[in-house]
This record gives sequence, structure tokens and C-alpha cells, in this order.
Amino acid sequence: MGVVNDARAADRAPKQDRSRATRQRLLEAAVACLAERGWTGSTVSVVAERAGVSRGAAQHHFPTREDLFTAAVEYVAEQRSHALRALFPQGAADRAELVAAVVDLYTGPLFRAALHLWVAASHEEQLGPRVTELEARVGRETHRLTVELLGADETRPGVRETVQGFLDMARGLGLANLLTDDRARRERVVAQWTRVLDRELR
Amino acid sequence: MGVVNDARAADRAPKQDRSRATRQRLLEAAVACLAERGWTGSTVSVVAERAGVSRGAAQHHFPTREDLFTAAVEYVAEQRSHALRALFPQGAADRAELVAAVVDLYTGPLFRAALHLWVAASHEEQLGPRVTELEARVGRETHRLTVELLGADETRPGVRETVQGFLDMARGLGLANLLTDDRARRERVVAQWTRVLDRELR
Repeated sequence: MGVVNDARAADRAPKQDRSRATRQRLLEAAVACLAERGWTGSTVSVVAERAGVSRGAAQHHFPTREDLFTAAVEYVAEQRSHALRALFPQGAADRAELVAAVVDLYTGPLFRAALHLWVAASHEEQLGPRVTELEARVGRETHRLTVELLGADETRPGVRETVQGFLDMARGLGLANLLTDDRARRERVVAQWTRVLDRELR
Repeated sequence: MGVVNDARAADRAPKQDRSRATRQRLLEAAVACLAERGWTGSTVSVVAERAGVSRGAAQHHFPTREDLFTAAVEYVAEQRSHALRALFPQGAADRAELVAAVVDLYTGPLFRAALHLWVAASHEEQLGPRVTELEARVGRETHRLTVELLGADETRPGVRETVQGFLDMARGLGLANLLTDDRARRERVVAQWTRVLDRELR
């Protein structure tokens, strides 16, 4: 009996790994697809093909289009948070580097994908409540992480709002980068606001 | 002859007024439609019906869908600039009031409409270059007006980037208001950043 169970467990493990890998491929393909084609161009079929997965397998993992794309944005947001934390394992030694890394969260394909999802959610009923909830969750996590990495003391009056305003600015910089390569201007703005943040958080 | 010409001129004037009024109704309906339904839901027919204008008359004013919606966003942006300037005819006496008024530019239907247009332009070929150009023009004008109303001295190092960062923050606050009523949080952030701007621009 024990031998049979062990063999079954061994058989199950790689199956779970394969399933997890498939899921991950679908999530990454979904974010890339959203970023490039927007919500109207992003369907489960298009993502399945891009991920090299059958449509049936895709629907096994994500029964609806809304499931797939909200899960995708959440997954990639978590990956980005982990990556940001990994960049600064002891907190941020250099505040300018950290500020630049946080702003970078808002200028890549993840932000672009999230933006398409938000905008679609503002007039698509099935998407609205789910994306609102997702945005709140990801927003809280980004705020928490930024406060921690900046070493900001939120018990001091104004510090919480200073960090929030900085994250709003990062989001606005992401939007300004949507249609044009805004890097040169952005670097000057970020350099100046790093000085401002330094003074405010001291 | 003089009498006939005068009569024709008198006849032309109300015609031009009517034409201008029709154009204006179309532009306002187009922005409202974009804000509510997004780019996919916004067609010339839908706007014409909303404005109470025939489809033919709408196409006489705006031969293509792109013409109509880019003109609409530009028109409403200009209206908003005029309104902002009219609010502060002698420049801004109270900086907090001005900061709040500038942030308001980014939380109403115009910003929502512009956002839909930008996002659509990021993956619609016919729209891309036109919206990029429009965004640059409106952005420059808003920057110029904000500098003027804030009485900011851009010859001082960092001042230009401070104002730019503030406008990026306003844009980010607009985005945060897309799916939820973010007013309470926004007011706290704006109050804090008014203090920061005061210190930086002094």
C-alpha cells in the first residue's frame, strides 16, 4: 500500500508543477497581451495561443476572461513587489535609487496592462467591482512597501500623505509615458522630487 | 447692391452662428460620450444622436471619427483653461485654492474622456500620432498656465521640475479617481502637497 501511495504522490508532484507552469505562462501572456492590444484585443483565445496552451486548458485554469486578466495583473504586481523588495534587502541605502525603482514600477508593461484594465473597468460592468477591489489591494501593498523601503515614519503628521502624493506622481509619470518615450523629462522630475522627498522625510 | 449684400450678410451671420452652435454641441456630446462609454462605445452616430444632429451634419463638421474625438478633447481642454484663468484673473491669491482648482482639471469628465482617448491611441494606429501631438499641446498649455497662476519663477533651478512633478501628481490623482470616489484621500494629499509646494516655490 505504502509503495503504491508513494508512487502516486511522485506522479502527482510533476503534474502539479506542470499545471503551475501552465498557469504562470497564461498569466504572463495575458499581461503582455493587455499591454499591447488593450482590453478589446485581449481574449482568452489570443492569450492561450500566445502561451502555447490549448483553449480548453486555459479555461480550466480561468473560467472567464475577467478571471484571467484580473489574476494576471495581480500576479505580475506581486512579482514586481517581490523584485523591488529583493533589490533592497536591507531597505534602501540610497533614496534616489529607490525612488527611481518605484517610478519604474509605473512605466513598464505591467502598468500599461493595469491601465487598460482600469479604463475598461470604468465602463464594463462585469469588470468594475473586481478591478476596483484589485486596485485597492495592489495600491495598499505598494504603499506599505514604499513606506518600509523609504524608512518613512508615518506617525509623523503629513508623512503618510507625502508618500501617497509621491505614488500618485509616479502613476502620473506612467501615464505621461504611455504614448511617448518620456524618459528624459521623467529623470529630471524624479531627480528634483527625490530632493523634495529627502527634505520632507528627514 | 449694398442693400442686397447687407441682406445676404445678415442671412449668413445667423447661419454661421447655427453652424458654430452645432459644432459646439457635437464636441460637448463627444466628450461626454467618451467619458461614459470609452473609445469602443464612441462612434460619430452615437454622438450625433446625443447632440440632436443628423449623422450627415455631424460628418460635414467632422469627416472622421478621429477628427471628432481629438477636436472634442482639445475644445474642452481649452474651455477648462479659460475657466481656470477666469477663476484667478489677478493670478492666484490663495495657493491652496489654485492647487485644488488645478487638481480638479484632472478629476472630471474631461480627464476621463482624454484618458480613454490616450489609452485607445496606444494601440490604434490612426489615433496614435494625432493624440500624441494633442497631448503635447494641451500639456504645454497647462504647464504654462500653472506656472503663471502659481507665480513660479522657472529661471530658478528645480522650479520647472517641481511644477511638472506637481502636474504629474494631479494626473495620477485623476487616475486614482477613475473607479472610486477618491475625494477624501485626495483632499488630504492635496493639502499636504500644497504645503510642500509652498516651501519649494518660496
